[in-house]
Amino acid sequence: MIPQAQALAAPAPGASAAKLLPLPFETMKFCSICGNEVTLGVPPGDNRPRYSCAHCGTIHYQNPNLVLGTVPVWQDRVLLCRRAIEPRYGFWTLPAGFMENGETTAEGAERETVEEAGARIELGDLFSMLDVPQVKQVHLFFRAQMLGPELDPGPESLEARLFDEDEIPWQQIAFRTVEQTLQWFFEDRRRGIYATHTGAIRYAARSQE
Amino acid sequence: MIPQAQALAAPAPGASAAKLLPLPFETMKFCSICGNEVTLGVPPGDNRPRYSCAHCGTIHYQNPNLVLGTVPVWQDRVLLCRRAIEPRYGFWTLPAGFMENGETTAEGAERETVEEAGARIELGDLFSMLDVPQVKQVHLFFRAQMLGPELDPGPESLEARLFDEDEIPWQQIAFRTVEQTLQWFFEDRRRGIYATHTGAIRYAARSQE
Repeated sequence: MIPQAQALAAPAPGASAAKLLPLPFETMKFCSICGNEVTLGVPPGDNRPRYSCAHCGTIHYQNPNLVLGTVPVWQDRVLLCRRAIEPRYGFWTLPAGFMENGETTAEGAERETVEEAGARIELGDLFSMLDVPQVKQVHLFFRAQMLGPELDPGPESLEARLFDEDEIPWQQIAFRTVEQTLQWFFEDRRRGIYATHTGAIRYAARSQE
Repeated sequence: MIPQAQALAAPAPGASAAKLLPLPFETMKFCSICGNEVTLGVPPGDNRPRYSCAHCGTIHYQNPNLVLGTVPVWQDRVLLCRRAIEPRYGFWTLPAGFMENGETTAEGAERETVEEAGARIELGDLFSMLDVPQVKQVHLFFRAQMLGPELDPGPESLEARLFDEDEIPWQQIAFRTVEQTLQWFFEDRRRGIYATHTGAIRYAARSQE
């Protein structure tokens, strides 16, 4: 996962969520095309406030981001990485990161798994899609069969290792989308049928702190 | 669908795709935070070129966008809208548009269906996810049960109407993601089982025209 300006979403329960919540859109002061000051307002024919430039006419749309990851499995054990970067330094996560321009969701999920864990995988089906509207993100996780147990954690991971279900560090999972995906995964594995799961993670109202 | 700076992806076969293909990232000349000129290069610890500002230190990440839509059905007929905006003015589409900050994928898909067709729906499961890497988009379509046949097309639709399968204007479908989603929908309906489908739409190499 390459660090991005936006904080990755939805820390697991117990974390201080309020401090990570960005505004509904990123602050913008100058037009990235012509360098003049932008103004915030609802453009003609639109129904939402956007930053726009009166000088060159550009409307600067802002939209949610996709975060792509995998649930890599080797002989009934699941691969987790311990984060070497903020947010949630030191907590455990499935390999995941922001989708890059020019790649598909499957390509991005596999790329993140290689970058963060050094795992060789065969990517499977889409497993979970979780909206995190308060941080403008949608998280997608694909199932993945590891092709061997070898791991080689990248610079964004303190370590990477395989966990049996009863070893999962539930109190130290970095993000709620990861926690929910792991819960769905073990439920489906017990049933013997893997579905595609969808849902949304919502925080309580933003605190005043 | 609110018009956006980015062209909506993947015109159906026969359209002049090359002219709609944007560069791998949007051109940026000035920092949107401090107004100084940005430079393009690979930041320390990163592995891809980004625009960044030497003056204030901001790295301006760019990421793919989500397009959200539905397959609305009323008594075995499917709802399509004829586009009143470019790209693909006059061609038929499922109701769909760019995801907005602060909403979930399901909320956005329902919003677009209301805005473009005035249809009242009960949203169903995620039906298709189609990557369109050349235009940095991922398209999601949800199944939707219409709660009545009444339609009230919005300003971005010339008209909206219900089609039996044998009436679908296959030669006048606006986007390949819509065409593929409709094909999957009718196949699944014949089988009597609706799955969640994933895939990617890729163009031939960019032409020199």
